[in-house]
Amino acid sequence: MKTQVAIIGGGPSGLLLAQLLHTQGIDSVVLERRTKAHVLSRIRAGVLEQGFVHLMEHAGCAERMHAEGFTHDGTLLSFGDEMFRVDFREHTGTPVMVYGQTELTRDLYAAREAAGGAIVFNVDNVVIHGADTDAPHVTFDIEGETQRIDCDFVAGCDGFHGVSRQTIPLTVRREYEKVYPFGWLGILSETPPVHHELIYANSPRGFALCSMRNDRLSRYYIQCSLSDSPDDWTDEAFWDELKRRIPADMAAQLVTGPSIEKSIAPLRSFVTEPMRWGRLFLCGDAAHIVPPTGAKGLNTAASDIHYLFEGLGAFYKTGAQEGLDSYSEKALRRIWKAERFSWWFSSLMHRYPDQSEFDLKMQIADLDFLRSNAAAQKAMAENYVGLPY
Amino acid sequence: MKTQVAIIGGGPSGLLLAQLLHTQGIDSVVLERRTKAHVLSRIRAGVLEQGFVHLMEHAGCAERMHAEGFTHDGTLLSFGDEMFRVDFREHTGTPVMVYGQTELTRDLYAAREAAGGAIVFNVDNVVIHGADTDAPHVTFDIEGETQRIDCDFVAGCDGFHGVSRQTIPLTVRREYEKVYPFGWLGILSETPPVHHELIYANSPRGFALCSMRNDRLSRYYIQCSLSDSPDDWTDEAFWDELKRRIPADMAAQLVTGPSIEKSIAPLRSFVTEPMRWGRLFLCGDAAHIVPPTGAKGLNTAASDIHYLFEGLGAFYKTGAQEGLDSYSEKALRRIWKAERFSWWFSSLMHRYPDQSEFDLKMQIADLDFLRSNAAAQKAMAENYVGLPY
Repeated sequence: MKTQVAIIGGGPSGLLLAQLLHTQGIDSVVLERRTKAHVLSRIRAGVLEQGFVHLMEHAGCAERMHAEGFTHDGTLLSFGDEMFRVDFREHTGTPVMVYGQTELTRDLYAAREAAGGAIVFNVDNVVIHGADTDAPHVTFDIEGETQRIDCDFVAGCDGFHGVSRQTIPLTVRREYEKVYPFGWLGILSETPPVHHELIYANSPRGFALCSMRNDRLSRYYIQCSLSDSPDDWTDEAFWDELKRRIPADMAAQLVTGPSIEKSIAPLRSFVTEPMRWGRLFLCGDAAHIVPPTGAKGLNTAASDIHYLFEGLGAFYKTGAQEGLDSYSEKALRRIWKAERFSWWFSSLMHRYPDQSEFDLKMQIADLDFLRSNAAAQKAMAENYVGLPY
Repeated sequence: MKTQVAIIGGGPSGLLLAQLLHTQGIDSVVLERRTKAHVLSRIRAGVLEQGFVHLMEHAGCAERMHAEGFTHDGTLLSFGDEMFRVDFREHTGTPVMVYGQTELTRDLYAAREAAGGAIVFNVDNVVIHGADTDAPHVTFDIEGETQRIDCDFVAGCDGFHGVSRQTIPLTVRREYEKVYPFGWLGILSETPPVHHELIYANSPRGFALCSMRNDRLSRYYIQCSLSDSPDDWTDEAFWDELKRRIPADMAAQLVTGPSIEKSIAPLRSFVTEPMRWGRLFLCGDAAHIVPPTGAKGLNTAASDIHYLFEGLGAFYKTGAQEGLDSYSEKALRRIWKAERFSWWFSSLMHRYPDQSEFDLKMQIADLDFLRSNAAAQKAMAENYVGLPY
């Protein structure tokens, strides 16, 4: 096989890149280790920055999102008995879009299929060869046979555990990591959300988040111990604990119901540098992870796709190398800002096992300052809706 | 002896309170453990918030400050090779006043003496009696004799090591503390400042600060180990190290000279709650300490004096208790914000011995965000010039 851009990974990043390249007549092949059904079964975040929305529009995949998604003009933060709102639109002129990752991935698949885009599922043993040469190729196994794709470039969109990052030699790669001493226990339930906007709660019993996919599908999280298992938590225990962590008036309005999904996710900050090695470009989780507080995971992937698409588009149009040469630097500059925001917002909202009483006072003072200071709210809102590309 | 307000401590807080009370015809006696010469020999910060300037005006002590002090409209921050400026006036409409604590204390003494205010020096064994009754009194030894002052109220302005805080029983007091794993080595030198505004520098070798008292008297600091002694540092070694930590163009312009003072200060965050016990009111360092980054020490003392003067003024005018009853809550609300700012600014600018590479990246990202985001600069500037009383 031969293509211009081999894309490793058929999640939203890889699909979005493929679809954007298609708008410029650039050919790609997407390789996905699992099935489409599996990809669509992953429950992930659904708060999208305007930059992401614009990329979806540019890719011609935004119609259903605009019809079925919800825009949020702000978010609520609570601590102890106090609750306040940060108004995104007031401070930035921009809302965020709430639209589940599953739906968005579905739309991207539909677009790729309508365009006859090549997506190969169930591939195994993917190996990227000659990434540091002018003629890379990718091999993979499918149904017991090894196949080969020759290409100009490889986009590594295969997540934290994928092969793309590992392809960059350790002598070149530098990795930065922070592991948080807690996890998020999340449930999905077919109940109306307790509030039409998200509620981030810092309570003496730990963090909680009231979120949603749509007006009949709620997503709630509570900070939990890393040693907990989802089986330790009955639905009833989850709801009881959630109610203790959110303001009493919200707890009183909470509609509970059976969970249709329940899982625990660890929290991690991770960045690898550089994000480019020869003709291999890392995008999204393959290069960086943020803790979920502030919903930057999918949005940081989108910012990478933006810069890579810009670089590849210019290259195929005029032969210009600058966009590709500066990809890693540009992408990382924005990634570190998003890492900072996610780390700060996580630090602000969670209770830490080793937190001193002074540390706790600083956290409360930080929340109190955010509550009372318009400039601090504006800085927070600008990060939340997404810093400019 | 009898007075309305016994003030323990003849530093700037105690003197300012005495002078403000005097403007309302309220009588006080200031008790100072040391001599006036000793108090005036203390080298301390000299960056004053507008709120402090207004209190000095109100006390009738601002004439020389306005004539000889310098207003600063902004400050410089450097990290690695990058330097940027935060413009206080642009973001807040307000500058800060640079005027040494020694000069300010001198002005307050002059005013107290001109008004015939009672200041007793060289007192020993100060004891506050009956602070939780309606008739407190203070005893102290002077020249081998024990004396007694009966008073309506006691203002504890006697610093971190004073007796006032210790007078509040441990069953009532709650203390919060953070000790930073480094100190500041500071020198005073009769050289022109390297720049007309302050430079806060975060360098791979640690923090440095270029400050001044006036245009012929410079004050420089470098972050040092807590195990260092001033004797470990020759003037030459100090200047060499300072030059390594500030941007090269600034280092090239630095005028060096012999130090006329050299000392090491530890960095500490500390708050005691409540700040009032019966008829005893704690002010300034007696109740709280901030690390010096951002120069909030004297300014937080001034904010306490403001609230206490407001409370006492109203009480003696109309008998109203509200201002006194809410003193601790009001003072602490602002103190915690200043503690947060000082902690944040210290965390931003110093290198920590246990800092991971990820932590360091967060620090640099935080500085980069501040450099590039107007709202973050505004929030910083509002804290620097002083949040409203």
